[in-house]
Order: sequence, then C-alpha cells, then structure tokens
Amino acid sequence: MGWSAKVSPCTVLLCVISSLLLSGVPIGAQAQLSTLPLPEHVTLGSGDLVIDQGLKVSLEGFTDPRLDKAKERFLKRLSEETGILHWPEATAGQPDFVIRTGHASAPVEALGEDESYHLEVTPGRVLLQAPNPLGVMHGLQTFLQMVEVTDHGFVVPSMTIDDKPRFPWRGLMIDTGRHFIPLDVLRQNIDLMEAAKLNVFHWHLSEDQGFRMESKVYPLLQEKGSDGLYYTQEQAHELIAYARDRGIRVVPEFDMPGHAASWFVGYPELASGNGPYSIIRKWGIFDPAMDPTRESTYQFLDRFIGEMTGIFPDAYFHIGGDEVNGKEWDANPRIQAFMREHHLKNNAALQAYFTSRVEKLVTKYHKITVGWDEVLQPDTPRDVVIQSWRGQESLAVAARQGNRGILSWGYYLDLNQPASQHYGVDPLAGAAAELTPEEQKLILGGESAMWSEFMTPEIITGRIWPRAAAVAERLWSPKDVTDTASMYRRLAIFSERMPWYGGATAGINRAMIQRMVGNADPSSLLVLASVVEPPKEYTRESLATYGSYSPLNKLVDAVPAESDTAREFNELAARIAAGKASREDFEQAERWLQIWRDNNAVLQPLLTGSSVTKDLAPMSVNLKETATIGLEALSRIGQHHSFSTSEEEKQVAALDRLKAPEAVLIDAVVPGVALLVQKARN
Amino acid sequence: MGWSAKVSPCTVLLCVISSLLLSGVPIGAQAQLSTLPLPEHVTLGSGDLVIDQGLKVSLEGFTDPRLDKAKERFLKRLSEETGILHWPEATAGQPDFVIRTGHASAPVEALGEDESYHLEVTPGRVLLQAPNPLGVMHGLQTFLQMVEVTDHGFVVPSMTIDDKPRFPWRGLMIDTGRHFIPLDVLRQNIDLMEAAKLNVFHWHLSEDQGFRMESKVYPLLQEKGSDGLYYTQEQAHELIAYARDRGIRVVPEFDMPGHAASWFVGYPELASGNGPYSIIRKWGIFDPAMDPTRESTYQFLDRFIGEMTGIFPDAYFHIGGDEVNGKEWDANPRIQAFMREHHLKNNAALQAYFTSRVEKLVTKYHKITVGWDEVLQPDTPRDVVIQSWRGQESLAVAARQGNRGILSWGYYLDLNQPASQHYGVDPLAGAAAELTPEEQKLILGGESAMWSEFMTPEIITGRIWPRAAAVAERLWSPKDVTDTASMYRRLAIFSERMPWYGGATAGINRAMIQRMVGNADPSSLLVLASVVEPPKEYTRESLATYGSYSPLNKLVDAVPAESDTAREFNELAARIAAGKASREDFEQAERWLQIWRDNNAVLQPLLTGSSVTKDLAPMSVNLKETATIGLEALSRIGQHHSFSTSEEEKQVAALDRLKAPEAVLIDAVVPGVALLVQKARN
Repeated sequence: MGWSAKVSPCTVLLCVISSLLLSGVPIGAQAQLSTLPLPEHVTLGSGDLVIDQGLKVSLEGFTDPRLDKAKERFLKRLSEETGILHWPEATAGQPDFVIRTGHASAPVEALGEDESYHLEVTPGRVLLQAPNPLGVMHGLQTFLQMVEVTDHGFVVPSMTIDDKPRFPWRGLMIDTGRHFIPLDVLRQNIDLMEAAKLNVFHWHLSEDQGFRMESKVYPLLQEKGSDGLYYTQEQAHELIAYARDRGIRVVPEFDMPGHAASWFVGYPELASGNGPYSIIRKWGIFDPAMDPTRESTYQFLDRFIGEMTGIFPDAYFHIGGDEVNGKEWDANPRIQAFMREHHLKNNAALQAYFTSRVEKLVTKYHKITVGWDEVLQPDTPRDVVIQSWRGQESLAVAARQGNRGILSWGYYLDLNQPASQHYGVDPLAGAAAELTPEEQKLILGGESAMWSEFMTPEIITGRIWPRAAAVAERLWSPKDVTDTASMYRRLAIFSERMPWYGGATAGINRAMIQRMVGNADPSSLLVLASVVEPPKEYTRESLATYGSYSPLNKLVDAVPAESDTAREFNELAARIAAGKASREDFEQAERWLQIWRDNNAVLQPLLTGSSVTKDLAPMSVNLKETATIGLEALSRIGQHHSFSTSEEEKQVAALDRLKAPEAVLIDAVVPGVALLVQKARN
Repeated sequence: MGWSAKVSPCTVLLCVISSLLLSGVPIGAQAQLSTLPLPEHVTLGSGDLVIDQGLKVSLEGFTDPRLDKAKERFLKRLSEETGILHWPEATAGQPDFVIRTGHASAPVEALGEDESYHLEVTPGRVLLQAPNPLGVMHGLQTFLQMVEVTDHGFVVPSMTIDDKPRFPWRGLMIDTGRHFIPLDVLRQNIDLMEAAKLNVFHWHLSEDQGFRMESKVYPLLQEKGSDGLYYTQEQAHELIAYARDRGIRVVPEFDMPGHAASWFVGYPELASGNGPYSIIRKWGIFDPAMDPTRESTYQFLDRFIGEMTGIFPDAYFHIGGDEVNGKEWDANPRIQAFMREHHLKNNAALQAYFTSRVEKLVTKYHKITVGWDEVLQPDTPRDVVIQSWRGQESLAVAARQGNRGILSWGYYLDLNQPASQHYGVDPLAGAAAELTPEEQKLILGGESAMWSEFMTPEIITGRIWPRAAAVAERLWSPKDVTDTASMYRRLAIFSERMPWYGGATAGINRAMIQRMVGNADPSSLLVLASVVEPPKEYTRESLATYGSYSPLNKLVDAVPAESDTAREFNELAARIAAGKASREDFEQAERWLQIWRDNNAVLQPLLTGSSVTKDLAPMSVNLKETATIGLEALSRIGQHHSFSTSEEEKQVAALDRLKAPEAVLIDAVVPGVALLVQKARN
C-alpha cells in the first residue's frame, strides 16, 4: 500500500486554501475545551478543581492490576504535566478522585466493547465512573488533557462529561517492514495513541524489504529476511501487554501473496518465480508473489498462521493482499495451466482463490481475516473485514455485500498532507453516505497509516503526530465536530504536551537541524525550516533516488509534514485577501515577510559548509523571492495602489515557479503570498 | 554531604570574572579537536575519512560479547550522529574500521586497569588498538566525538591518537536518596558518562529522606523507608551490567551512622534515640544516628553488608560517614556510659569506633571501605579510601597517613557554579601539590557529586550535564590542559550532541517553560530564562521553604546552572572593558541589551496568568533595569563621554541591588553590565 496507492489529486495551493474554508460550527461547551478528541457531551460547571496538592485517588468497585497500573500512570503523567510530585501521604489539601468501575473488560479486548465513561469534576472532588476499565482509561486521559495552569494554580475546570466513541475501530498502522522501527519508538506511539483514545495498533510486520517477526517454526524468515532487524516473540508479547494496559488492541499484518520478497530469501519454494531471492533494497511494487497453486504453500501458511495466531491474541488477523502485479504468475507456465484447469480467468480470480484458501486457515485458528481492498470479491466470506486504501466507495461495496470495513483512504500520514485534510475525511461520507443505517453499521471506523519508505526511528513519531490525533477525533467524536480552527487550536495543545505523552516532540526536529550545520548557529536554517514542507503524496520519489539505506538526514526529513508558521501566515493572508484583517495582522505579515526576505543573506554562507545543506541554496533564494513578492503586494494593498494586469501576471508566473519543489521541499508560504498578489490586483 | 557542605566563598561577580581570566595555553593539535576530554597525544594527519557509506567494522584479537555490544552501540550512535543508516551488507565504498584488542579485562572492572588506546584515522582506514576492551570503548567514544559535517560529507579528520587517563578514579555521584531517580534517568547518565570517559558511578542509595535499595534480609528498610520508591535487586543487577558494558564501575553508598533516619522507620532498634521514626520530609542535617554501642547494630550491619556486597561486585563499598551531629548520642545516658567505659572522649572518637567496627565487616566480605572525610582518623586502616568534600587538604592528610583519596570538593554540581570553576579545581593542587610523588599517587582522582534536594527526574540530567564533562576532562586529560575557552567551545559541542548521548538535552528545559505558561507563546519567558541562573551554593534554601514534596516547577528549575547567553555577554563586556572589542562586539552587546530591556513589556502580562510565573514580575523588571544601565554605559563608551563619579556610584548601587536574588533566581548579566559601567567611568 505504501508505495503506489493514489489519493484524489489535490495541489498544495488548493489543499491549503480548502483547509482554510473548511470549518464546522462550534458546539457550545465543547468549543472551550482543550481535549482532543472532543467528548460527546459536556456541561460546564462553575469554579475549578485545584490540584496543587496532588489528588487522593481511590479505586472503587471492580479492580484489577491493570487499573492499578492505569492509576500509577495517571499520577505520573499528572506530575509531569504540573511538575508537582505525587504526595505519598494523603494530606488535608488533597481532593478525592474516585474511580468507580463496574466490571472487568474482556480478557482479550474485543471489538465493540463498551468504552464509555462519565466524569464529574467539581472544586472539591472528582468522580470517574465507567462500566469497565476501558472507559476508566479514556476518562483519565480526558482529565489529564484538561489540566491547565491559572493564576491560582494548576486546575481542571468544573464540568460533567458523558462520553463514548462514535466508531469502535480507531487505529494506527505502522509499517515496520520497510524500515525497522525499534520497540521503544513503538511504545512511544502507543502512549500517544492512549492519549488520543485510539484503540487499535495495526502492526505491519512484513514487506519486500524486511520480515520483522521471529518465527520459531520457520526461522529463516527472520534470519534471512530481516538483516537482523526483527522483533522476538518475547518482545511481541511485551508490546501486546503494553498496549493492552492502555486499552489498545494489536492486530498483526503479514502481507501476502505480494509484498513478500523477504519471505522468499529463506523459503524460495513459496514463490512463483525461480529465485534466488534477496531482500529488496528499493521502494516500489515488485514482482515476487507467493505461488497460490501449490498445496505446499498452504501447508506452510497453515503452520505459520498457527504459530502467529498463538502469539497475537486479538480476534483479527490481517493478511494484506494488496498490490500484486501478477508478473510472476503470468510468467509461470505451471501457474497458467493451473488457472486454466480451475477456470480462473485472470490474476484477480487467482488471488481470490488464494485469499479464500488463506481465509479458511485463519478461520481454522479461530481468527477473523482482515485484508486490503483487493481481497474483496463477490464471494468473499461475510466475516472478512475490508481495509480500504481506495476510499469510501470500496467500503460501500463491501457493506452492500455484508462485509465490514475500515477506512484508511484519506488517513495516509506518509503523504504529508495537512491535518485539516485528514480531518475532513469521514468514513461515512461519500459513497458510504448512501448506505442504509444497517449497512453503515458495517463500517467499523478507520485507521491512520504510516508507510515507512521515508521514516527512520528518529523521524517517524514526529511525522505521525500530532496529525494522527486529528484523525482520532474524526473517529471518536460526534459527526458534527468539524470546526477546523478548533481542531488546530487543540492540536497545538496536544503537540505542546507530547513531551509528556511518551517523551516525543512535535515540530521541527532540532537535533537533526543542529546535525546538519555541525557546530554552527542553526538559527537561519531554522527560519527556512519553519516555512518549508516535504512534498505531498508520491512526488518525493520522483525528485530524487531513494532506497532502503538512503540517508534520511536532510531538511526534508527534519521538518514536520505541515508547517504551523506557513499555515498561520496563509490564514492571515486569507484574512487580508478577504478584507477581514486587523492592523496587527498586517504588521505580523510584514514582519514575517521581512524575516524570510532577509534570511537568505545569513543562511547562504552557512549552507556551503555542509554536504547535507548545500543543495538548499536555491530554496533559500526562493524564499527570499517569495517574501519580496509578498512585501510588494502588501505595500500595494496598504497604499491602495493596485498591480496592473501585466504586473500581476508577472508575479503569478514567478509564484508558479516558486511553487515547484526544490531540494525535495516545497515553499509553503507561496499560497498565502498568491492570495496577497490577487488582493493587490483588485 | 548534600546539605551543609561549604565551599570557598565566591561571589557571583568574582566567579564569573575569574572564569574569564582563567585560561591555559592551547597545546598544539589538541586545540583543534572537538573531543571532551582531550586526549593525551594527538598528531594530525592530512585529509579525512568520509563515512557517508558507513564503516566496515571488524573485531580482531580478543573478543567477547561486551565488545560485540560496544560495536553495535558504536554503529547506532554513528547513525544517530550522521543520520546515515548502518549498511548491513558491506559495500565497496565502506572504509575498514579495525578494532584490535589484546586480551580480556578483569571480570569485575578493577581500579587502575589499563584504559589506554591507540587510534589511527586515515582517509581509507581506521585502526583502534587497545590492550583490553576498556581502551576500545574509550577509543570508540573519541572517534564518535570527532565526527563532523563538511562540504564533502560526514568525516573524521586524519589523525593518530595515543591516549590514557591521568587518574584511575573518575566518578559521578548521584544522590537517589533525597529524590528517587528512576532507572531510565540513571541509564541516561551512564550513557553520558561513557561519552565523557568517566568510569565510576557512585550510587548514593540511602538518606534520611529515603532508603532506595531492596533488602530481602531486612525488607522493612524499603517497605517503610522509601514511600515505595526503591530499586529492586533485579534492577540493581541490570544497572550494574549496563554500566559494565560501558566500562563503568558501580560503587554503592549506604550512609551511616548519620543520614539514616529512613532505616529507623522499619528498624528503630538501630537508632540512638527513642523513636518512633518517620521518613524525613525536609532538607537539612538531622539528629537520628545509629547506636554504635550495641552489638545488635553490628549484627544487623553484618548481615546487611553481606547481602549488599553480594549484589554489588565492585571491590569498593561506600559507608558514608558524614555529618553526624551527635545530638542523639549526647542525649542517651547508655551511650554516654559506654563512651566513658571505653575511654571515647568525644563523639568523633565514638564515630571512629563505629567506623572501625563497620570497616571490619566490609573487610570480612572482601571489600574495601570508602567514606567521606569524617571517617579519617589517625588509626584508620590504610586501605580505607577517603572521599573529600572538604578539599585537597583532607586528601593530603590522608595521603601522609598512607590512605588513598578521591576529591569531590569543587565538583559539587548542585551548587550551580560555572563549568569553569569546577574545571579550575585540580585534585593535585593546593595542599596536595606539597605531597611527594609517591604520596600523590594515593590521590586516585575525583568525583562530581549531584545532591538531589532540588533535583527531580526531569531536572537532574540537565543539571549534571554538560558540566560533569568539564570535570571529566580535568580527571582524564594531562594536567596542563587548562584552556577554559577551549573547554567551553568543546562543551558546547558536547551539549549539542547530548540528544544522541542517551537522549538528554542541555540548556533551558523547553517543556517546563511551556508548562509554566500553559498554552501561551513562551518566547518572552524564554528571553528571561536565557539570562537568569539558579542561586549559587546553599543560598536557595534561605530564599524559600522547601521539602521533599515541594513542586520544583518554577523558572529556577527550568534553567541550567550556567547561562550560556549570560556568559557570552559577560565575556563580550570584558572585551569591551579591556578595550579589545570589535565593532561586532559592540553591536551584539547593544542588540542583546535592547532585547532584554524591551522584553519586560511583552512578558509582564503573561506572568500574571500563571501561579508558577507570577513571582517573576520583579525579576523581569530587574532585567529591564539592568539592560537600561548597560545601554546607557555602552552609549557613554561609544561617545567617549564618561560617567561622573556620582553617576557611576548611582549605577553601581543599582547593580548591587539588581545582583540580589529575586524569585529564587539571579540576574546573570549584572557582572557584564558592571564591567561596562566601570569602563564608562574611565
């Protein structure tokens, strides 16, 4: 899925502008909250709960070690958010925080388990009530997100919340196949998932470029297919327990019959070609595919699935199924003969045959199959769940057949699109909106997906977050929670708190920036970094050549997918263009543009000294030119002295050129400057 | 030791100025290196080794799992420093990196083991040769510190290094008694110790405020004495193994007979008073002390030391021995009778009796005793090692008696003194310089000490580092390596790389700053943060009331001990005062002073909204006033228009007032402004 999946075309300019126009209606009390996702129902009270003395937390009703651990984690995070150490001895000043739990949750977290909670905060007391530990954990996160500092201490405002998720399947997929992502980084992401109330970690474990899970039955899978970079079964058990402690399911994915070259290095007999096979070190879609015609393939998969389902307790098991190009099948006379014999008229039919065989094996081990769009056929068994990278249309087709579905189209975080764009994608919109209410229930939710062609352990967390939290709100909060400005306000708060959510930081990676300039002052590079973005969708690969071991240590790797500064500037420019700008807006726009114009003179000499900054020279000039155009437009607007048509055409042409990627980066303030030029014309 | 130890008086002004004047002579090739500590011998070659394709690292000669792990760690850090992923398959472009090891190191790292290494870097090849793995590990760190980015890639310059430490005992003590410091933070510090070639982690494990080590023989020690915050024996084993993998010994300290109130909560029969005892929640020196007169005390300690020496394999065992105020002894008639009966004429004699009894128990378990100054008596056994918080004089006295010593006076990092001040303290200076060469050999080295009254897990690493690296250089590098400017240049490089040395950052703690202002823009608070410092020595306790559970979440806790900006400004002011300033110096001084003067207007409204910033209002005004005086002085200097005597007196009086702590902080640019005022007078 990572490589070739296409999303609806959207130029940078259009995306940014549409994100500015997209905004829902603030819904009362919710609009004042800082939580992400927003809860279903809130009633604000008066006064607030002061927590400067700590809290006296007690567990009532059902209790188990997981709740004890949740309480400890809560107190630790509360300490981190406030700098107030937990007082071991209850004191007079400590308000009661009562957690009342109804009963146990399922031994293995089940899809659709009750995740609701009721939270009452008053100046003297907190009550958190939930049917089971899942709701308790969500309620604790809500409370933590509402902590704020005031002139009278760290407080949580008085309020009553009744909350539950809109969708039962709210996931994050991490591709650990293309780049190995160590366990500490996965744990960090699971901590952040807990904060955002996501509940499914989809662990993409095998790819052409690496087989990442230890098999004891077939040890050559990891021994020959991973460069030594794989998870042991013991580590998988640990991560599953870690996730369960946070109310998160773990769904493993072993991609087949395609995307499987790494399997064939140790077991070439599984493949449809002649081999020998080696780990693929490039990105793309490749020919190797399992041989669906041999019984030995299914005997292998039977034992393999038996082993893996013994490790992963979740009821769902993902078999991939995407992007088989069929070239090995076409080239193999034995496979062609098999197809004729079995009346399989094309490769899609052959894959359907393979899927149905594998699905039976998954069922044999009492698991439910999940697969990407391609596994859906008219006769696909009704319990197979379709994960769609193609869009709501696929899910609608599936639902009409009675198959359940999960949306990932629109939630591909590796495409570097703005949070607002992901936020605007609803699993029940588009073709899915046409479904009957009963059919709509078959759409279980969605999953953000992070494919890892351009992700290393130091990059990936800052690229997943905070945008995955915007998707989390789409999947948790009521359908009418769609105010983009509110989302961005709360996303900034979420980002600020990320150091306490698993030790991650959002925004520009400063250590990477410092590395780029050696021991020099990085300030001018940071100025450039603050307004550039990585290219969107799949254009990066066309701008330079990359493979598994390409260093990812340039500016494109150190900046977030979406520039906050550029977004704010573009919003400001939109206000100016709409005639709604304040004097401060004009001043701020001018200040920014001056900084960007003048930065080039300081930055240029710095760039030449380092092999990883040299190619930024033209981009720094581009920013200067963009800013110069912006300042000219601003000045014309201020003087009510319009551009002539020819002047405007010249500026528009220049901006068109400046819009093009340079050093594998885009100048993200071009859209705002374009608005200023347009305004200066009128 | 943490609380009451006193160091030589040194006002802020004098310290800063003396640090500016203190500077040694650059010693050839060493001056161009970026390593900290500097190696003993360096010969620079020509060209450099380009590592953009990774390195082909091979182990020759002796090898063991520890070397394999060191190699893996090396490759991981090299990846982090360059962003270049390690290539699993050797390629044509990879230079050879040959590690040749002579033989095994001792099964338990021994004091004085050979730590030398020989490192040759040429454009095509690296050779690292060492008698044993300890030297290999040091050589790998040296190599990592020399990686730099150039216009032709990440490189290490060609050179040949022969290196070994000046002192065999180069330590860092962390007090985990007063505030519990979790294992991940200790591991982070051990990673940083490895980077700085320190080789002893002194683990201060018990205090009046907490007993932090699990005892299975006497479980009430941790059960009643730790608030549940202690290390299990399993965790201790893990940390010891972690340290050994990095060439670092672990010396445990159990402080007795004083600083031991936490022991008595579970075992009051050990104490000299009547009890009952509870964990002490304040800072200071307290009365509780073990009863040295009862045989049961020694029976307890016999079993306890037997248990603990079974956990800690190091040959040395620290029994504390500091700061017994003797009040419980004075008040106990039975103890008084014992002293008369045994002709122990005062409390010092009683403690000496105690020490000699405990020392025999330590010897019984084949360990060597270490204790603070107070354990030294004329008849102290020769093998007892004295750790001095009092100064080289104590070590000289010890050495003349034949006792070995370690210097910690001058290396107390919790006193918030500048790196230059610690750097200026030599274990063989002062009274120790008078010793014979044979006696000097008894001075084994030194230890930085971090007492934790004002340290929490989020604060401590940023307060220990980078200053502990300056002390590390004093203990490793030749005696004549004393150029403070060079040290600060390299300390800045060390700080920049800290994110890769265990994931820590130096400088202002930005997450804490953000927490202080909630969701507001922290820029103006960061401006203030950049030029203030925590109060020095023991003044903090006199400025506010603190105890174990006081929140440490204010500006004083979020800033480093030494402000880089203030130091640079003060150096710049010293150049102006000395008539050696460039035009850029003047401009930079003016720019800074204007920023500081104008910051108050932006910062004031922000401060009132948060309970943890409110008290900063006067400090922000102070900075404005300091800067205003500085700008006036600068203008006078520029115009050659001297202050009159009365004008100068007024300014000096104002600066005297501005020098006083405010909101438990000091305005660290006052010394520089004072120099400007002085210059403007002449």
